[in-house]
Amino acid sequence: MSVEFDAVLAAAARIEGHVHRTPVLTCATLDRMAGASLFFKCENLQKVGAFKMRGAANAVLSLSPADAERGVATHSSGNHAQALACAARARGIPATIVMPSTAPEVKRAAVAGYGAAIVTCEPTLAAREAALREVVARTGATFIPPYDDDRIIAGQGTAALELADQAPGLDWVLCPVGGGGLLAGTAIAAQALLPGVRVVGAEPEGADDTARSLACGRRLPAENPRSVCDGLLTSVGERNFVVIQRRVHAIWTVSDDAVVAAMRLLFERMKLVVEPSGAIGLAAAFAHAGDLAGARVGIILSGGNVDLGRLPWPVAARES
Amino acid sequence: MSVEFDAVLAAAARIEGHVHRTPVLTCATLDRMAGASLFFKCENLQKVGAFKMRGAANAVLSLSPADAERGVATHSSGNHAQALACAARARGIPATIVMPSTAPEVKRAAVAGYGAAIVTCEPTLAAREAALREVVARTGATFIPPYDDDRIIAGQGTAALELADQAPGLDWVLCPVGGGGLLAGTAIAAQALLPGVRVVGAEPEGADDTARSLACGRRLPAENPRSVCDGLLTSVGERNFVVIQRRVHAIWTVSDDAVVAAMRLLFERMKLVVEPSGAIGLAAAFAHAGDLAGARVGIILSGGNVDLGRLPWPVAARES
Repeated sequence: MSVEFDAVLAAAARIEGHVHRTPVLTCATLDRMAGASLFFKCENLQKVGAFKMRGAANAVLSLSPADAERGVATHSSGNHAQALACAARARGIPATIVMPSTAPEVKRAAVAGYGAAIVTCEPTLAAREAALREVVARTGATFIPPYDDDRIIAGQGTAALELADQAPGLDWVLCPVGGGGLLAGTAIAAQALLPGVRVVGAEPEGADDTARSLACGRRLPAENPRSVCDGLLTSVGERNFVVIQRRVHAIWTVSDDAVVAAMRLLFERMKLVVEPSGAIGLAAAFAHAGDLAGARVGIILSGGNVDLGRLPWPVAARES
Repeated sequence: MSVEFDAVLAAAARIEGHVHRTPVLTCATLDRMAGASLFFKCENLQKVGAFKMRGAANAVLSLSPADAERGVATHSSGNHAQALACAARARGIPATIVMPSTAPEVKRAAVAGYGAAIVTCEPTLAAREAALREVVARTGATFIPPYDDDRIIAGQGTAALELADQAPGLDWVLCPVGGGGLLAGTAIAAQALLPGVRVVGAEPEGADDTARSLACGRRLPAENPRSVCDGLLTSVGERNFVVIQRRVHAIWTVSDDAVVAAMRLLFERMKLVVEPSGAIGLAAAFAHAGDLAGARVGIILSGGNVDLGRLPWPVAARES
């Protein structure tokens, strides 16, 4: 046990009732294809459609009443923005989300739908950070970062905490890695609960900064990352990297084609809507079937926020 | 309690371990839209992607060893064919499926993938029945009908048996109706376990033979049924109609547009792949929001077997 794992346990107690205990599903066909027993932790079925709800809820519920009253803020155009907006609404406090002017209308609408205020800025990191500083100075809101934060890491770790209970005796846990909040939390929880478990990060070939960083022993930024996994383009965070270096068995990189094939299998065989970033764990399992032969493998399906008017395979509209 | 409900309990004991205990999921956004508390029984996450696995498993496991040895047979191009093939393989006995020459290749492949023999016939009911008689005469196989059968009705009822345990105190249960196996089984189980519950069948406007049959007190066949709900085009069965007449509160008919809208909401908000026939319960809940206001409503999502290369809304392929 560790201080870090205590934080995961505390997060679980704090967010109970605020997040779904998502199901763990299995599929005989995918087991046969992989040559292993696969246990899918369905965070695509989590509130707001992604594990991000766990960390955001933990951060928002950790605030003192005085801090909470002044609200929370972040800059994000992804699942963290929706998760923070949703968690703030549940506590009845204001949330302000800084979004670039290029963010798709559907994402702005989702954030606004959770009652958050949106501040639009130019699509550069400098403009986002300046806009966020202005919001914090004006409102006194607490900045909740998307991944490089102990409260976020502990919150994301609660998915693996549940997984270890729902699918005992796992030999491996495969988990997507972008900023590293989910992977760090997963490694902490899995190692505390599953003796001998190997936790692996699954990363797109075109955004492999975590793999390169581990190989050279220090954090390297992602350079022009390109991948169908739009949730995994960020560079691994500082705190996240420290945990990952110490606890993660390996990073397995996967091609976009393999990710899309895995995503389609999850739709077809498991009837689950999973976004590319969420399907990468299954793609990694197929690519490393030799390592996993006969083992019990947990796979975290991290999210399901796909634009259903735009899928990465050809679709004909059926006349109705 | 009734003899019929005893058969559901017996089916549950018989098929345990052969089918998934599917999760019941909830969605705050859909609750807000419907003005009620909705509990979704996810039979799209059942083996072979549909509740049909329950009835088929019950029928196959009910056979005496001598009968089982000679195998099972049916005519179907839908989910029942896959379910029977899968259940037969699990017991290690032969299955023969009579399929019309017009059946899509993807459905033939799925049945063959479960190890069943396929007999192809002309796409008429007479040809199907003749082919089936020939198979039964030649092999001694037992014919397992898709819905008009007590073992099938009892097996399908196990979904509602689980639902009543997973979501206590339901006021309503909404369930698709085609041949009526699922609706009959659901009504038997729900009435035995949920005092005062109202069980409603959801039927496409373009295939409303059950609604018309109930209205005039005798079974009327479907005439040129047309609907996006390809699983609900069959006429209600004889045994099924007797149960439905006695136990079902009402049949609510729904337009195809409403079904497609509900299906897309299930993809988008609940991250579930549901076929049109499976989404009709949610469409019926929206159409009858006045009746359901504030109530606890169980909705059976009956299946998820959608051709993902063909969806009932416009989809652009995303360049990867």
